Amino acid sequence: METNNVTAILRVSCPDRKGLISRVTDFIQRNEGNIVALDQYTDRLEKHFFMRVEWELEGFAISREEIAPAFEYAIANPCEMQWKLDFSDERLKMCIMVSKLSHCIYDLLARWRSGELDVEIPIIIGNHEEMRVVADQFGIPFHLLKITKENKAEMEAEQMRLLEENKIDFIVLARYMQILSEDFIKAYPERIINIHHSTLPAFVGAKPYHQAYERGVKLIGATGHYVTADLDAGPIIEQDVIRVTHIDTPATMVEKGKDVEKIVLSRAVEAHIARRTLVYKNKTIIFK
Amino acid sequence: METNNVTAILRVSCPDRKGLISRVTDFIQRNEGNIVALDQYTDRLEKHFFMRVEWELEGFAISREEIAPAFEYAIANPCEMQWKLDFSDERLKMCIMVSKLSHCIYDLLARWRSGELDVEIPIIIGNHEEMRVVADQFGIPFHLLKITKENKAEMEAEQMRLLEENKIDFIVLARYMQILSEDFIKAYPERIINIHHSTLPAFVGAKPYHQAYERGVKLIGATGHYVTADLDAGPIIEQDVIRVTHIDTPATMVEKGKDVEKIVLSRAVEAHIARRTLVYKNKTIIFK
Amino acid sequence: METNNVTAILRVSCPDRKGLISRVTDFIQRNEGNIVALDQYTDRLEKHFFMRVEWELEGFAISREEIAPAFEYAIANPCEMQWKLDFSDERLKMCIMVSKLSHCIYDLLARWRSGELDVEIPIIIGNHEEMRVVADQFGIPFHLLKITKENKAEMEAEQMRLLEENKIDFIVLARYMQILSEDFIKAYPERIINIHHSTLPAFVGAKPYHQAYERGVKLIGATGHYVTADLDAGPIIEQDVIRVTHIDTPATMVEKGKDVEKIVLSRAVEAHIARRTLVYKNKTIIFK
Amino acid sequence: METNNVTAILRVSCPDRKGLISRVTDFIQRNEGNIVALDQYTDRLEKHFFMRVEWELEGFAISREEIAPAFEYAIANPCEMQWKLDFSDERLKMCIMVSKLSHCIYDLLARWRSGELDVEIPIIIGNHEEMRVVADQFGIPFHLLKITKENKAEMEAEQMRLLEENKIDFIVLARYMQILSEDFIKAYPERIINIHHSTLPAFVGAKPYHQAYERGVKLIGATGHYVTADLDAGPIIEQDVIRVTHIDTPATMVEKGKDVEKIVLSRAVEAHIARRTLVYKNKTIIFK
Repeated sequence: METNNVTAILRVSCPDRKGLISRVTDFIQRNEGNIVALDQYTDRLEKHFFMRVEWELEGFAISREEIAPAFEYAIANPCEMQWKLDFSDERLKMCIMVSKLSHCIYDLLARWRSGELDVEIPIIIGNHEEMRVVADQFGIPFHLLKITKENKAEMEAEQMRLLEENKIDFIVLARYMQILSEDFIKAYPERIINIHHSTLPAFVGAKPYHQAYERGVKLIGATGHYVTADLDAGPIIEQDVIRVTHIDTPATMVEKGKDVEKIVLSRAVEAHIARRTLVYKNKTIIFK
Repeated sequence: METNNVTAILRVSCPDRKGLISRVTDFIQRNEGNIVALDQYTDRLEKHFFMRVEWELEGFAISREEIAPAFEYAIANPCEMQWKLDFSDERLKMCIMVSKLSHCIYDLLARWRSGELDVEIPIIIGNHEEMRVVADQFGIPFHLLKITKENKAEMEAEQMRLLEENKIDFIVLARYMQILSEDFIKAYPERIINIHHSTLPAFVGAKPYHQAYERGVKLIGATGHYVTADLDAGPIIEQDVIRVTHIDTPATMVEKGKDVEKIVLSRAVEAHIARRTLVYKNKTIIFK
Repeated sequence: METNNVTAILRVSCPDRKGLISRVTDFIQRNEGNIVALDQYTDRLEKHFFMRVEWELEGFAISREEIAPAFEYAIANPCEMQWKLDFSDERLKMCIMVSKLSHCIYDLLARWRSGELDVEIPIIIGNHEEMRVVADQFGIPFHLLKITKENKAEMEAEQMRLLEENKIDFIVLARYMQILSEDFIKAYPERIINIHHSTLPAFVGAKPYHQAYERGVKLIGATGHYVTADLDAGPIIEQDVIRVTHIDTPATMVEKGKDVEKIVLSRAVEAHIARRTLVYKNKTIIFK
Repeated sequence: METNNVTAILRVSCPDRKGLISRVTDFIQRNEGNIVALDQYTDRLEKHFFMRVEWELEGFAISREEIAPAFEYAIANPCEMQWKLDFSDERLKMCIMVSKLSHCIYDLLARWRSGELDVEIPIIIGNHEEMRVVADQFGIPFHLLKITKENKAEMEAEQMRLLEENKIDFIVLARYMQILSEDFIKAYPERIINIHHSTLPAFVGAKPYHQAYERGVKLIGATGHYVTADLDAGPIIEQDVIRVTHIDTPATMVEKGKDVEKIVLSRAVEAHIARRTLVYKNKTIIFK
């Protein structure tokens, strides 16, 4: 999509039936909307329909506030749709959580600073001191919450307070080496993006590069996924790989892997920000 | 698309205007058609609209023969559309033209034999004797037409006679090392697919691997494209690359390149057969 | 390596110590050998040394038969080396084992016919009738040994009889959908190459594309590996991936995966034939 | 290579002859050197030999200062070698030159800060004001030298003064949108690394993404290369690509291309810093 006008972005899913595309596009056309992007997909095995459509608000016959109720009444309810409506001028508020490694957070902040990532970043939360200097470089408040076995519940409570206080829309775990509690995860469903340093489901859990080294693989990779209560088992947004050889050690894999981790994470975040993702049964549909 | 039923496949392009998707899908829906695939795209720089939609014929209210006139009258003419209508049970007739190298023709024929490529292959035309044995292995008539400077016009006339006699729909140049005449090319517009052994526009013309070696590149590749009167300048369908290093010579590049050539050519042919391509201003839109 | 002369190919491994490269290359140089390729590698974690060196036989001061004893006495024994000596004019005898799918066997046979794979293929063994037609196309004897739960031991005995009778050097499982017995595997250590249709260790066992679909991955791949008694856990020779999207079903993954399977398997076989592989502690060193 | 000890790194090239590897490794071994990496290559078409060998200084029988004269006398002169000797504890001094775009400079500085790039960066030179803020973030002096048609010679003189004053070893053009003069280039032979936003030799010169869009390519890429007096024609160090589709515009290609540009440039810089590059006849040998 390329337009400088504000757009409405509608994502829907529902049981498949005839005429769904026609009904939705007709709703937009009759109200003088100019569609700038449309992507749809029918899961034939699940008999389920998915669609993302984006149209310019300028000239649209229904006011911004009235679109949701109008759509709900005319189409969503009769078709038993799950749906989300967003507007392209609503900038999401993103919180980065981080431990000691800088490659992912630097890549995110450099993209944010240059305008590649169209978000607000009100806060960065670290469980180690190391990344404060990076937050400082970009003028973003850094909150250090050191987590130990003893204080974990307390620290999470403080994290959640900060997230609420700053009206955070979604969280990016930029190599945050802590497992979040189920309660935390449930509070941000499909709104926590993690980067795992393997092509899941290979090498779940700790030290995936060491596992990869032990297995003697010829490719290593990274996976950007939404976090669910199941460790490293949430819906995958993006994956990529790079070659390694017998010469590589766990240490060189860690270094090489950084490039693919940061690129994969940033692509996953971009897809989320552009409202191009939709989760269904632990899979992520990525609209174009 | 995955359906066992016969489908209608409609590809359209026209100047962009509001409501095009709605009009086309409404035409299908009102006539009880079940859409199994839809992809559309608007070129915002050219203000031009492109769409491919596929629906099941079973249960469609308009008979197969009446769809084209009905669509033309109701939508295509008022919207100034260029359009093509095909049916999934119409198997295209493909002619392979070849010189001495076997990797591309073997890959095509192996896919054809296993059912991956849903086409008929009535004839293979060679300008050398070498590939007769391959044609024989797969029981396809092989026509040897040795081209020299002196007999080129005569041989092309014979080629075109064979193509017409066998009602060939499209031609695949599977490393056919001859330049076709403008008249030949004009007779098969957007119906001749060539594989060039470089990532065009790099290394146009003869011996691209030798050119690549001379330039010291770190990637070599291949390009599947429709043939136009401009040598190696037709609309690109598919491209891919593989890594080379300083160790590679022109000879090892020739060997390594074979893998990427055959895969790229077969992907291009598959896109053409599935009616997923549409050429506009020397570019190829590849519908999903 | 590019030379038209016959070469000696020496692969060695031993505990690391100073001067190993110098000792081996000095042995060759003092005897007037012209080195055409050398690759070495030290595993610093295991403190183990690996090397492959290839030199022209023409002009070498030691006769072909005397090289092994001379090298053993002068260098291999004092340095506690494991080693193999081969000559480039010794064509390996390869047996292809296959079930019903044709893409891998076609790719291997097309390469063999064109001279890309410099091997002999005395026999093809199938446990189904389907691939007999492919063997026939290329004029290679096809042996049908239908395996059932009841006759498995008997059939394997017959397979091994055929392998011995035909002096088979190594076996390629080109989508052979049977698990070999431990005895069979032990008879051909590091001499059975399998293609598994996932990037191991992800999706071990049956129906990896269905597992990949269930998990919602964005990449599928293939792994060429030496077979060991541990199912899908042998030393990896080569891996590669291709992208899939939410649109893909198990059926389309099966189709797309064929390209990467056949390329990965052929690359693994090429590395084995060129004596560029060396297995150490369940990993495969791939010399360049 | 992985060792914590200081190493000597020797790169040599010379006309090919028998016994070169043996002579060099023997020199190291006789002096009690422990080789930690060795890579060699013979260009059979040019009959030229290339080698990189790295060994630990600790325990080496020749003092650091005496290695060069000893090697020159014993081996380099008799073998007519071109050669360079470096030590791993000599940190190179790198100058970044930049215009308005931040993705490449951010990637370089983030790697430098995290220790991935083991260099000193005494200065950054910009021909626009925009990147001062990035230099400031990382505490590196930023020199603004605005170049116009009129003042180009003067500004280059000032650039070269700064480079000399800061004892710069090599220069990275991180999307520096100015053409350097021949005199400047000659002063830093094989010591200026540029990133060009296409897979050279495709799309030389200005606006390669616009050229790529016009041609309708399916892959875009980037090339890291040493700068020579021939524009975009210097020895290639690294290249990579990413996929685009018919949907992409010049503007989206510019965005997508940033990822591949920064990764390719950083890999090229890493190879240079690790002394793994060697230029011969306008090609770059990349030792492993």
